[in-house]
This record gives sequence, C-alpha cells and structure tokens, in this order.
Amino acid sequence: MSQPNMYRLNSKEVAGATEEWLAKRGVTKEQIGQLVMLLQKDYFPELTLAECVLNVEAVLSKREVQNAVLTGIQLDMLAEEGKLLPPLQDMIAYDEGLYGCDEVLALSIVNVYGSIGFTNFGYIDKLKPGVLKKLNDKSGGVIHTFLDDIVGAIAAAASSRIAHRKQAEREALAEGIQVRDEE
Amino acid sequence: MSQPNMYRLNSKEVAGATEEWLAKRGVTKEQIGQLVMLLQKDYFPELTLAECVLNVEAVLSKREVQNAVLTGIQLDMLAEEGKLLPPLQDMIAYDEGLYGCDEVLALSIVNVYGSIGFTNFGYIDKLKPGVLKKLNDKSGGVIHTFLDDIVGAIAAAASSRIAHRKQAEREALAEGIQVRDEE
Amino acid sequence: MSQPNMYRLNSKEVAGATEEWLAKRGVTKEQIGQLVMLLQKDYFPELTLAECVLNVEAVLSKREVQNAVLTGIQLDMLAEEGKLLPPLQDMIAYDEGLYGCDEVLALSIVNVYGSIGFTNFGYIDKLKPGVLKKLNDKSGGVIHTFLDDIVGAIAAAASSRIAHRKQAEREALAEGIQVRDEE
Amino acid sequence: MSQPNMYRLNSKEVAGATEEWLAKRGVTKEQIGQLVMLLQKDYFPELTLAECVLNVEAVLSKREVQNAVLTGIQLDMLAEEGKLLPPLQDMIAYDEGLYGCDEVLALSIVNVYGSIGFTNFGYIDKLKPGVLKKLNDKSGGVIHTFLDDIVGAIAAAASSRIAHRKQAEREALAEGIQVRDEE
Repeated sequence: MSQPNMYRLNSKEVAGATEEWLAKRGVTKEQIGQLVMLLQKDYFPELTLAECVLNVEAVLSKREVQNAVLTGIQLDMLAEEGKLLPPLQDMIAYDEGLYGCDEVLALSIVNVYGSIGFTNFGYIDKLKPGVLKKLNDKSGGVIHTFLDDIVGAIAAAASSRIAHRKQAEREALAEGIQVRDEE
Repeated sequence: MSQPNMYRLNSKEVAGATEEWLAKRGVTKEQIGQLVMLLQKDYFPELTLAECVLNVEAVLSKREVQNAVLTGIQLDMLAEEGKLLPPLQDMIAYDEGLYGCDEVLALSIVNVYGSIGFTNFGYIDKLKPGVLKKLNDKSGGVIHTFLDDIVGAIAAAASSRIAHRKQAEREALAEGIQVRDEE
Repeated sequence: MSQPNMYRLNSKEVAGATEEWLAKRGVTKEQIGQLVMLLQKDYFPELTLAECVLNVEAVLSKREVQNAVLTGIQLDMLAEEGKLLPPLQDMIAYDEGLYGCDEVLALSIVNVYGSIGFTNFGYIDKLKPGVLKKLNDKSGGVIHTFLDDIVGAIAAAASSRIAHRKQAEREALAEGIQVRDEE
Repeated sequence: MSQPNMYRLNSKEVAGATEEWLAKRGVTKEQIGQLVMLLQKDYFPELTLAECVLNVEAVLSKREVQNAVLTGIQLDMLAEEGKLLPPLQDMIAYDEGLYGCDEVLALSIVNVYGSIGFTNFGYIDKLKPGVLKKLNDKSGGVIHTFLDDIVGAIAAAASSRIAHRKQAEREALAEGIQVRDEE
C-alpha cells in the first residue's frame, strides 16, 4: 500500500495495457459483447450488440478489472514460455481442475458489479460459448487458463451492469410518464 | 466474537436444526445428491448416488454451511409470513433480480471447498435442474428465494469435495501400484 | 430473478429505507465518516470529514450495499424481538464467534469498491473505534450483530473509493501541470 | 478442468513445493505460528506455540492454500527478476496501493476456514506484526507484495481453525462430564 517517491502509478498506462494485452491474446470487445448478448437477450429483447460492447468497455475501465486481466494474462504467457517453476508450470499449462486461482481472480471481476453476476459467470464458464470455446481449445501450445475465466467474468459483470441500468431506465421512464399524467 | 457466561453454543443443535429445517422445507439429501450426480457423472462415470449423498452430508456437517442454511431458510420463512419490513419483504418475496444477498450467502458455502466450485454453482443455479426447479416455482405462496441458491451451492461444494477426493484416491492407488512394483 | 407482472422494484424506496433504517438503529453518516477519516487521514492529511461523508453517501447509493444493510438490520431487529427460530436466535443474539454470516454480508459491501478494502474492514472490525464500540456494546437488550460489521464495511468501502479518487485527482493534476510545462 | 492423458497432478509435489518455496522466501511455520498466537492468545490463554504451528500445518495441507502460495510467490519472484511486463511489473514491484490481486488471492486462503477469519486477516495485514514487518520491508530489492498478504491469510485461517476446534473440544468435554454425571 506504500508508494515510494519515485514510483507513480499511471492509470492510462494500466488501462492501455489492458486493452492491448486482450487484443494481443486474440480477444475483442465485440466477442465479449456477444457473450453478454447471449446472457441477456432473453431478459432484454431490444438489447443491441453495440450496447453490450459499451457495457464491456465500462467494465474494462475499472482498475480492479484491469489488475485481474493483466495478472491473469501474464501468468498464461509465462506458462506458454515455460518460465514458471514446477509444479505451478504444469498446473497452469494443463488447466488443472484442482487449481482455482483463475476462478478466484475472475470472481474479483464479477464482484465489482455485485453478487447477481455469480450465476452468469458460472453458467458461461461451464458452457464455453463463442470466444470462450476458442480460448479453451488446448491444442497448439497456446495457454488461456486464466484468460477464459477472465473473459467470462467480464461478460458476467457487464450483464450485471446492464441489469442495474435497465432497472434505472425503467424507473426513470415510469416517473416521466407519471409526471406527464400529473400535468 | 464475545460469549457471555450463560450462553453456550451447542453444535449438535445447530447441526440438527439444519437437517430438520431442510427437511421441513422439502429438500432431501438424495435430491441434493442427484444434483451432484448431474454435475459430476461426466467426470467420474463410476460415481454412485450413495457416494454423492455421503459428500452432501460432509458439506452439511460444516458450521459455515449450517449457518448459511439456517439464515437463508429463516429469511424465506419470514417472507412467507409477511413479517419482513418493506421493501425487503417484496424483494425477497418476489425473488428480485437485483437482490443478491441470496447469492452472497450461497457463495460462502461454495467457498468452503475452494474456488473450483464457482462454475458448478453458477451453472446449476441458471439451469435449475431437479429439486431446484421445484424450489424455483413461484406459485402457491411458498418462497424459496434463498433456499434454491443454497441447495445449488451445497451441490457445488459437494462436487468440489468429490473432485479433491477422487484425485487423492487416484494418487493413493498409483502409489500402491508403484510400491508393489518396487517390491 | 423473475419479476411477476404486478411487482415492480422501486429503487427510491430501497434507498430511502436504507437511510431510514440506519438512522433508526442509531447510526449517522457522520459517524461512518469519522471511521473513514480514522482509516485515511494518515494517507491524505488534507482529507475533511465532509469529504468522508460524501464518500459514505456514494457507497450507500449502491444497490448491493442497500440490500446488505436492509437484510442485516432486519435480522438484528428480529433477534431483538426474539422472533428467530432456535438456534439461529441465540447465535445472532449472542454474536456467536463461529457464526460468520454477518461478515459474509459485510464483505459483499467491501467488494463493490474492490479488494483493497479487505484490510481496512478487518482492522476496523477488530479495533471497534467510534460508533462501532457503541454498536458492539452487548448490554441493554439491543442487538447489532450484523450492523457493526456492516458499518465497518461501509467505512472500508468509502476508504477504497477515496483511494481510487485521490489517485485520479493526482493524475489529472499532474497532466494539467505537464500540459502547462509543454506550452 | 480437463486433464490430458500424459499430465498427472502429483499432490505431494505441490505440497512439497509449497513448503520449499515458503522456506526459500524466508518464512518459517514457527513465524506464522507466532502470528496465530498473537491473534488467539486473548481468547485461549492456554494455547501453545506448538499448537499454533500444528494448525498452520493443517492450513498448508489444503490444496486451495498451496495454489495461492505458489502463485503469489511466483509473481513476487518474477517481479524481483524484472520479468513482468510493464505496468504490472511496477505495480507489483512497488506494492501499488490500488493493486488488489494480492488481497484477492489471500482471501481465497481465509475462505477455506470460513468467514470468521476476515477480521483477523485485515487486522494483521494492517498492523504487520512479527514476520509480516520483515516481509513488508521494501528495501534491498526483495519483493514480497503477495507473500505478506498470503502469510497473514494463513495465520488468519489457522486462527479460524483453532476457534472451531476449541469449540468442539469444549463440547466434547462438557458431554464427557455429563456422561460421568449420569453414571
């Protein structure tokens, strides 16, 4: 928690690196937006992909989320390069079922928009639709043990954000109508 | 954390009440065991329902789990009786989507067997198979806003326990064979 | 997650009830602000109580926080009235050390502003300064088993919010200066 | 969660590496035991250091704990070697206050023995007694950004374990006496 004199956190660099690393690892905001769409379209039939992407961007603007994304991708990349010490190297490289630090980091993302996202996270993490299927493909030497959980968590958090926003919109609309009624 | 002189926690009473309240609310260990079976049968084809039930019982023997079960069922029952103050009464009675304390309590159950259970919890909480479908039925004045999440969490925790146990068994077996090889 | 036709969540009512219940249970925003001051004054010597209170209000405006406050206070009040079923009645009435649902709900408040608040929550929950000492006083038949943890969690969350804001201010200022330097 | 044919998790290796890495990073079980003693001696005056160390060992035998220890130490070491990508390198090297992945991993350790450990974790993480002071010393190029939180979390988890055990012992004793009374 201490901050020595010479070091200064630069938030734009952290945000920029998050975006850059996600792109380098093959994940676009549109792909995450499609996961959000899948999770929310039954509740909000009028929802557009553009709206989903905007909510993904809002989630990605949170420091807590950026920290988890960078840490997770870093561990995936080091595992790809074989630079982790055994047995951590093997557990991450083989996406060991009893290794849960990936889920732990992912949940810290979901938590930022509250507990209503837990269900969506688990659901999407199990079914692996869209980009998650690609990330979960173990062939070709590419390792996404952390990233697939993180992407699912971002989609779940964006879904929670939409649920909160839609309620606020509904209430504002209802008040608007009420106000007109009283005129 | 303080314990006045006259009060003494009685663990057997807490454990007994947990079992009794679950039964009164219409949930059997076999039903939870069937959820576990659903979650784990693809990974462990030889798994039996009896084994699943044993793991459910182990989860239910944990104090953390008992506390969450009792607290959740209590809130469900008070909501049924209309004894909660508005607007909490309505949020619990109608299983409000933006109310997440039920998920929060449920996750404290999952956590006891580690983070690998998050996914199973979310998956089952979304799909609502078996007894969860019954619990989630909003007709008839019965309220299970907390209990359906709690039952899903117990099943997810029992699944985590099985995953850890099966690994231990596999290793013990491997060692046994190795030992014989060396003889 | 379902919303029957006649029920409609009213966010203003939830927010209003949160404020009302906190006041009825003897907790003011100023008292929570003083806890925030205690936690943050060493890091930000220029911090004012008014600023702390504003951050407490921002925390209290979050739905996740309101849900936890209402649920916790409700359980405290029902325990005071002796309306909970044994043994839950006793565990809450005597603030049983092995009962942790109060900490679980409190942590869901801390989580909303990210993981950097865990430490402050635990610290303040152990030391019980200011209003927490009063809430933790077990004499007189008043029960605040949930509320003392919840108030500590609100203070910890407000502290996290301040830490994030101050960094943003610092960076905006630095950019402003830099911009001038470049002119 | 998948386990390709050739890879086989070896639990003894994971447990062994956890012990080895903690030792290499300068942390002994006795030092963690002393933190436990500090947290629990007021509640259990008869508690011995040997008993505390036994409880630390029980915590360290849990897979969830081992995973967090190994992952945290790995990140500390890579930061020491300057092998992380900026800006993650800087955030971990300087123990950035707004970086909370260390607290997130630590909390996954605390969770294994339930929510009653949150308070002890936060308290000890703020005060930094004993070995935590040494780990938190930023001079000399050694980085323990993750490890100091992890060690505090192990001590908090061991404290929770003791609290649960002591209650069980108390009840067994009470029953024993009762049994004799009835004879």
